[in-house]
Amino acid sequence: MTIPDAIAELSLLLGQGLSCSKSDLDIHGRSESYFDTIPPDAVVYPTSTTQVSEIVQVCAKHNCPVIGFGTGTSLEGQTAATSGGVTMDFSKMAAVLEVSPEDMTVRVQPGCTREDLNTHLRDTGLFFPVDPGANASIGGMAATRASGTTAVRYGTMRANVMALELVMADGRIIRTGTAAPKSSAGYDLTGLIVGSEGTLGLMTELTLRLQGQPEAVSAAVCAFPDMAAAVKTVTETIQIGLPIARIEFLDSASIECVNAYAGMDLPATPHLMVEFHGSENGVSEQIEMFREISSDNNGLGFEWATEAEDRNRLWKARHNAYFAIVASRPGSRAIVTDLCVPISRFAEAVEETRRDIDASGISGPMLGHVGDGNIHAILLLDENNADEMKHAKALASRMAERALRFGGTITGEHGIGLGKMPYMSAEHGDGVLVMAAIKKALDPQNILNPGKMVTTN
Amino acid sequence: MTIPDAIAELSLLLGQGLSCSKSDLDIHGRSESYFDTIPPDAVVYPTSTTQVSEIVQVCAKHNCPVIGFGTGTSLEGQTAATSGGVTMDFSKMAAVLEVSPEDMTVRVQPGCTREDLNTHLRDTGLFFPVDPGANASIGGMAATRASGTTAVRYGTMRANVMALELVMADGRIIRTGTAAPKSSAGYDLTGLIVGSEGTLGLMTELTLRLQGQPEAVSAAVCAFPDMAAAVKTVTETIQIGLPIARIEFLDSASIECVNAYAGMDLPATPHLMVEFHGSENGVSEQIEMFREISSDNNGLGFEWATEAEDRNRLWKARHNAYFAIVASRPGSRAIVTDLCVPISRFAEAVEETRRDIDASGISGPMLGHVGDGNIHAILLLDENNADEMKHAKALASRMAERALRFGGTITGEHGIGLGKMPYMSAEHGDGVLVMAAIKKALDPQNILNPGKMVTTN
Repeated sequence: MTIPDAIAELSLLLGQGLSCSKSDLDIHGRSESYFDTIPPDAVVYPTSTTQVSEIVQVCAKHNCPVIGFGTGTSLEGQTAATSGGVTMDFSKMAAVLEVSPEDMTVRVQPGCTREDLNTHLRDTGLFFPVDPGANASIGGMAATRASGTTAVRYGTMRANVMALELVMADGRIIRTGTAAPKSSAGYDLTGLIVGSEGTLGLMTELTLRLQGQPEAVSAAVCAFPDMAAAVKTVTETIQIGLPIARIEFLDSASIECVNAYAGMDLPATPHLMVEFHGSENGVSEQIEMFREISSDNNGLGFEWATEAEDRNRLWKARHNAYFAIVASRPGSRAIVTDLCVPISRFAEAVEETRRDIDASGISGPMLGHVGDGNIHAILLLDENNADEMKHAKALASRMAERALRFGGTITGEHGIGLGKMPYMSAEHGDGVLVMAAIKKALDPQNILNPGKMVTTN
Repeated sequence: MTIPDAIAELSLLLGQGLSCSKSDLDIHGRSESYFDTIPPDAVVYPTSTTQVSEIVQVCAKHNCPVIGFGTGTSLEGQTAATSGGVTMDFSKMAAVLEVSPEDMTVRVQPGCTREDLNTHLRDTGLFFPVDPGANASIGGMAATRASGTTAVRYGTMRANVMALELVMADGRIIRTGTAAPKSSAGYDLTGLIVGSEGTLGLMTELTLRLQGQPEAVSAAVCAFPDMAAAVKTVTETIQIGLPIARIEFLDSASIECVNAYAGMDLPATPHLMVEFHGSENGVSEQIEMFREISSDNNGLGFEWATEAEDRNRLWKARHNAYFAIVASRPGSRAIVTDLCVPISRFAEAVEETRRDIDASGISGPMLGHVGDGNIHAILLLDENNADEMKHAKALASRMAERALRFGGTITGEHGIGLGKMPYMSAEHGDGVLVMAAIKKALDPQNILNPGKMVTTN
């Protein structure tokens, strides 16, 4: 029972649907983040649920690891083949299977990307709201419990995946959830699989909740003298129940990068960028209320836009912020951190992190999804400078510790993968033993993405 | 290792905190629904998490069942002591521990009731939105994944429980989730426990998401010529993104009961009752849009109210509907069914159920949470009439089958308990084996509410 035996048998089963070419292996072992390339022994491209089940059965027979793969945009090394084995690339299972306009749901295959789905939905009056930035696959987004700029209004993948078809570690095909909007029938297996990073089962079909395209969209950007003023504005906005669709912060270092990159001249102070979705009257009223709240909290300037063109200009700063930050240190590699804290501790967490980054001498602008308490610092490094890498990793480690000290979590939306494994016990205590017990119960051979998320020995 | 040994040891540990009086046992073995009284061997009243852990350790040592108990309002026999053992009544762990206004969260003990929580929150500008009707305990609501009239806007318990403190089957105390608004750190243990009916762990503390009390509330009631017209109104309302806080339907049989009970004269046709929460302008606009949609769908009459007094009058019909229906057949006992279907199949499901009930000769008005696809038929029976009981159970069984045939679920909000156990395999297929594997992994002795939700042998 070896990996080569599994590959030999899979090759007979799949023919052209299996690849061992070096370029293919490298592409699938590569990471968007700072991890080394850790390629699998083969890549398989299933075309149906039945084939996924057959592949998993072969792998189970030979004790061969199976790693699910969408578009490879994960940030914590989730798809690294640390024990070798087979990467299952879902790019040939990327169909939009069925839109149900009345139910505002859609069934998709896991390889379908977020942008392809929304293009497909364009004429239906509906859209899928979760937006992590990258054009990730829906399966990958579900596997990492992704979220992004719109989670403050529409929730994370946890709230937007209603039902799944899954292949379990023994090849068994099951369905979780139904097309009904809610259920109290048994353990929430859908919720257990969402965020499990391919360690408990492989998703072969997802039923997603959709939203109606809003009649009107309005956006605004506002500068603040400090983070505390910006955060107070956010808290008050949420408390009075304003249905913000997005509320993003950029710290002054990020704003400086954006100004340089896009030739803008925003004041070099913390900014909030917001978007409202609703009726024409609704969004006007919401923007006005938000303007008042930000003004009461010493907001320094306020720009708003309802026309698509103006809105796009306003949001350009946010959308390009990552590239603007990376461009601010040519040739650098970025480590993107991902702490998430209660909103009441947000300003403090940002300020403490700012001081910590500044003391390290590393460049690290910060931005994030303030409505969710989610902070990203983008640490810019020369990866050949071992000293910088060491300092950056120590910074990232202190950020995880800080998130926990402030009552938060070591990752808001990027997941565990390899990068956050060292902090799981600190966050969950004996909860990691409960997770390991579940993993052992559902994947006793430890073949599904082994070495990620939980330690079973 | 016997139940009496466990009780003897618990008695030494707890003193007055343990009761074996017949009245206490009967109260805790009784059900709100049609199940016989199945009392435990003892009732314990823990006062702290440590004590809960100690009690569970004693029970584990002696293989003695432990059944969590809130206020006893579950409808599917969830607290029946079918294997005897100890019922753990959380009424002495009912404190509101900490309100965090900035984070819009609250930590409570499991025995705290929904109404006590909202009374406690009254002056904070916040409220806890989940409203299953009964004044249930928060722990019980979480255990059954309860929802009710407001779930269409604010979600079920699944969406509103952020974090837990739990005692596991071996007495170990763990914490799941954090106070941050979201996380992608590991398996969603919080979501796994919510809805698990005390079979995987006992909740000793819950962190809940709160909502800001709306500036304005507005309500309306509208009659329709048939269910299809009412449902089309609902679908269009949701699709254009109107943020309805409640949207309830009552069928003509329910309306007749309400008229007789409350001396009202609503037309004997299907009705929708809606409530909007928001700003003054927002709710006015929303009511107006809803009026237009219902008018386009042949709505027969439309009454709306923004003043609390008028609103209360409008909602009286809905709030008293259960009592009005039960009063329509004096001396009867009610079986409340709970199917939940995709909204696109709602009208069809109601109409088919109507025909089925009518053909049976049993009286069974229907109402429900139409925004969630959730239908309750209230079957009125003479419980001494074996023939009626048989027909009613057959009707309930066909409703479960119908829910699945229409792509829905056997229970929207009442849970599994004993009553829905026979349909678990029909809904979940091999998913029940996955649930059983989880149960075995987390409660290998099967002492936590044994015989409920999953079969482990």
